Amino acid sequence: MDTLTNDIVIFAEDRTRRPIDKVITNDEKEICTEYEKECPFCKGNENWTPGETFLIEDNGEWVCKSIYNKFPILDKTSDNIKGTHEVIIESSKHNKTFYNMDKKDFENILTVYKNRYEDLIKDKDVKYVSIFKNFLRKAGASLQHPHSQIVSMPIIPPEVKNELNVAEEYYGSKGVNLYEDIINKELEFRKRVVHNSENFLVIIPYATKYNGEVRILFKDNKRFEEISLYYIEELANILELLFKNIYNERGYMPFNLFLHTHPINEKTNDYFNVHIHIVPRRYSFGGFELSTGMYVSSTNAEELAQKIKF
Amino acid sequence: MDTLTNDIVIFAEDRTRRPIDKVITNDEKEICTEYEKECPFCKGNENWTPGETFLIEDNGEWVCKSIYNKFPILDKTSDNIKGTHEVIIESSKHNKTFYNMDKKDFENILTVYKNRYEDLIKDKDVKYVSIFKNFLRKAGASLQHPHSQIVSMPIIPPEVKNELNVAEEYYGSKGVNLYEDIINKELEFRKRVVHNSENFLVIIPYATKYNGEVRILFKDNKRFEEISLYYIEELANILELLFKNIYNERGYMPFNLFLHTHPINEKTNDYFNVHIHIVPRRYSFGGFELSTGMYVSSTNAEELAQKIKF
Repeated sequence: MDTLTNDIVIFAEDRTRRPIDKVITNDEKEICTEYEKECPFCKGNENWTPGETFLIEDNGEWVCKSIYNKFPILDKTSDNIKGTHEVIIESSKHNKTFYNMDKKDFENILTVYKNRYEDLIKDKDVKYVSIFKNFLRKAGASLQHPHSQIVSMPIIPPEVKNELNVAEEYYGSKGVNLYEDIINKELEFRKRVVHNSENFLVIIPYATKYNGEVRILFKDNKRFEEISLYYIEELANILELLFKNIYNERGYMPFNLFLHTHPINEKTNDYFNVHIHIVPRRYSFGGFELSTGMYVSSTNAEELAQKIKF
Repeated sequence: MDTLTNDIVIFAEDRTRRPIDKVITNDEKEICTEYEKECPFCKGNENWTPGETFLIEDNGEWVCKSIYNKFPILDKTSDNIKGTHEVIIESSKHNKTFYNMDKKDFENILTVYKNRYEDLIKDKDVKYVSIFKNFLRKAGASLQHPHSQIVSMPIIPPEVKNELNVAEEYYGSKGVNLYEDIINKELEFRKRVVHNSENFLVIIPYATKYNGEVRILFKDNKRFEEISLYYIEELANILELLFKNIYNERGYMPFNLFLHTHPINEKTNDYFNVHIHIVPRRYSFGGFELSTGMYVSSTNAEELAQKIKF
């Protein structure tokens, strides 16, 4: 059972030994060029996209910015669920990825995340703001140029609601914050810890529906809109080193990264900590998972943690 | 909102127009040969697999059979969740697929499904039996040879539990069976009906998290273990024609098919009908879906129903 979500996870390491047909399912090729003529997010092609909502410049040139999504999942005119959908162009360079970015790149991205988050929660109808990243087609990305997305919505989405319920119930029955408890236990056990810094703990969860998931937990219950530059620098440093190690271990792997933050104007601070899920997407769920909502794990959390720890 | 599951589905047809990088993501190639030397499921390679649990012969040769899974998700020795995992080899021929099988092939498959289901529910610890099929790697299949899987388990799995809860609540508040209500409404509206036969209704659901899902609903609340040969023949006929039309419309598409049946020894007959989900797996969910548990639909159910109806 995943302690954060109560997802049912069955361990069947043996299944990795099963015969598999030789079908070509290579990862996408790595990108070499800084500029791609047909890419709407490249520097030089700015007139293809709507104006920016926020931008960071270096020597008079933009290096990271946010724009409205021209093809929103939600917008102000949606029938039922209204919200705002922005794209964060993480770099002006086409060939930057989380696998080759440096600390400064990550600082820029996190600064834009925070700015857009702060701004979007000012709307009184907004109940939750979701920040996520799709890397490569298998992870749902339609464009290769490095980008993240941020969507505001008037409801607490089901996945977050579920995590909140699990944490609230734990707090109610045990009188302690689930996240603090996990942090203390993982620090004591040590073997699943990838990195321990002043304000964050990076772990491989013992059980998760996504084989090889990495989680970054905030050690305190600070809200995302409250994080200081100090936190941003610390987290940027973690992301740089973490993704370098993931790349060394697993290559150019498709993944999703998403933040789970506090809902707006709800008293959840006592029992919920902000955290980040980093989810490999090399393999697809099969009919068993879709049909049952139960998940099969073949990852040994301790082994993976040893391989990518820093 | 999906009426069977209460999944939140947002319609954003516009998103199909968004720019997409040219990345090669071809479907797998179709298979031509009836026999593949290295395939453990091909006729002639029987000694690679455990003995069969049930088999159908034609002229003294097996044509469809079930065997224990050598690499089970669950088995009798699992720590927490014990069960049995069998593979149904749908045909002795390597190059048969749901897209080219005839009515007799589907009758054989359904007959094996029913036999194994009946047998597995005899175990007093079994609470639910899941039947599912993965077609092609993107849908989670590790082998190409046509096969389905059947897994018994001592719990009602979360996805099924959720559908049961939705249906029970509907029955409690409205006093009618949700499935009957959907069947009557879809028959009246007509535009989402793919096929209407004596005992089954095939529809494209108005809202579903899986773009392009097809559902086959049992019109009565017969339990799966109770279906007669008459039902099997009717359903086999539907599957043959349905998959021919899906192939003509969408080509060699990866998909999952799974049955949602009644849990064992529970009084669910009044409010729940057996049904089959057929779920296209050409595209992957992105971080939005994973992170929120909300889904974006770009399928026009009426258009799709018109294209594949028979």
